[in-house]
Amino acid sequence: MDAPTPRTQIRRHPERGAYDLEVVRAILDEALICHLAYVADGGSPRVIPTIHTRIDDTLYLHGSAASRTMRAATAGLEVAVVATIVDGLVLARSAAKHSMNYRSVVVYGIARQVTDPGERLEVARSIVEHVVPGRSEHVRMPNDSENRETTMLAVTLTEASAKIRTGPPIDDEGDLASAVWAGVVPVSLATGVPEPDGEPRDLPEHVATYRRPGGTP
Amino acid sequence: MDAPTPRTQIRRHPERGAYDLEVVRAILDEALICHLAYVADGGSPRVIPTIHTRIDDTLYLHGSAASRTMRAATAGLEVAVVATIVDGLVLARSAAKHSMNYRSVVVYGIARQVTDPGERLEVARSIVEHVVPGRSEHVRMPNDSENRETTMLAVTLTEASAKIRTGPPIDDEGDLASAVWAGVVPVSLATGVPEPDGEPRDLPEHVATYRRPGGTP
Repeated sequence: MDAPTPRTQIRRHPERGAYDLEVVRAILDEALICHLAYVADGGSPRVIPTIHTRIDDTLYLHGSAASRTMRAATAGLEVAVVATIVDGLVLARSAAKHSMNYRSVVVYGIARQVTDPGERLEVARSIVEHVVPGRSEHVRMPNDSENRETTMLAVTLTEASAKIRTGPPIDDEGDLASAVWAGVVPVSLATGVPEPDGEPRDLPEHVATYRRPGGTP
Repeated sequence: MDAPTPRTQIRRHPERGAYDLEVVRAILDEALICHLAYVADGGSPRVIPTIHTRIDDTLYLHGSAASRTMRAATAGLEVAVVATIVDGLVLARSAAKHSMNYRSVVVYGIARQVTDPGERLEVARSIVEHVVPGRSEHVRMPNDSENRETTMLAVTLTEASAKIRTGPPIDDEGDLASAVWAGVVPVSLATGVPEPDGEPRDLPEHVATYRRPGGTP
């Protein structure tokens, strides 16, 4: 990862910025989904939620080959991708000092289309593993028709930054005597009881023990 | 809300599209945060996570007046805002048919700066209520200096659409005999044990009973 560029340099609360590739990787890996922004023909912004995965220092996204986003991407689309994990609600004694504890990553780059069959297979496997580790070996990998229907995009992590807030609210001195409770309410992604589809099958280990990182059952 | 425009019309999986304002409102209200995309000077995309709130048919965002986003917005910024709630992991018998159950809303529009003191106070209150219902009456509202430091943006819900996926995986006929477990793993935002800051205060009802909609303790 290169040094911060004007757009990855964290200016607001610079103490929350992180340019360490290890930090960026860990946040991308833990975030279940990300949001992909780009500029449409005519110059207006677009943004969509999408699943992603990371292999080494490349971020991969995929989508239907028929979608507007993926068709736009055939020309080498400039993208901004953000992944955000909310860790807690920061409840302060004044409205303005309320905040969130969070970890986010923004990646800028020109999306490359992934066409090599070997790389595509690796990405398909990695996307399944990103969502449910241990599952990819049990499921059928994409066939030719599914490959044709799916566009995969790659963005290298050369221009990326993380932003992290942790800790309690930071109230004004004059508010500390307030009678209101202040502090942090942790939040995390909990998994519920798996709902089987079709004929009963034994619940495999990778589903039975499934938890999001930091998540609760 | 107007009829779907070319960019709000859901083309991929049109059966997942919803243009009903009630649906759009409910998703915006339940989503804890959203992501704001815009086009920077020079034409490249930007996207940031941010807290929002909705009052009637207006979506409000706020941020530091010193931030690049908020400074860009002073000129009447064209924005795309997306709010996404993930409800479940859809685990299919083939890699390509994996999906997520989710509810998302995209809103397009020109952001208006909120300058009226009465409207700003209402927005400050509403943002606190969006995150923790019942809290706004207990906390100090913004003073002049906090007001100067905070830019508030308003986007009307005239060009908005929702996209919703529910239900089990939709596997290929030929994969149904697969030995692998398939189905949905529900996910929701769980709240942990509140971590008090500073001198002990009684845990108020609005914190003690706090749950995200559909969330678990």
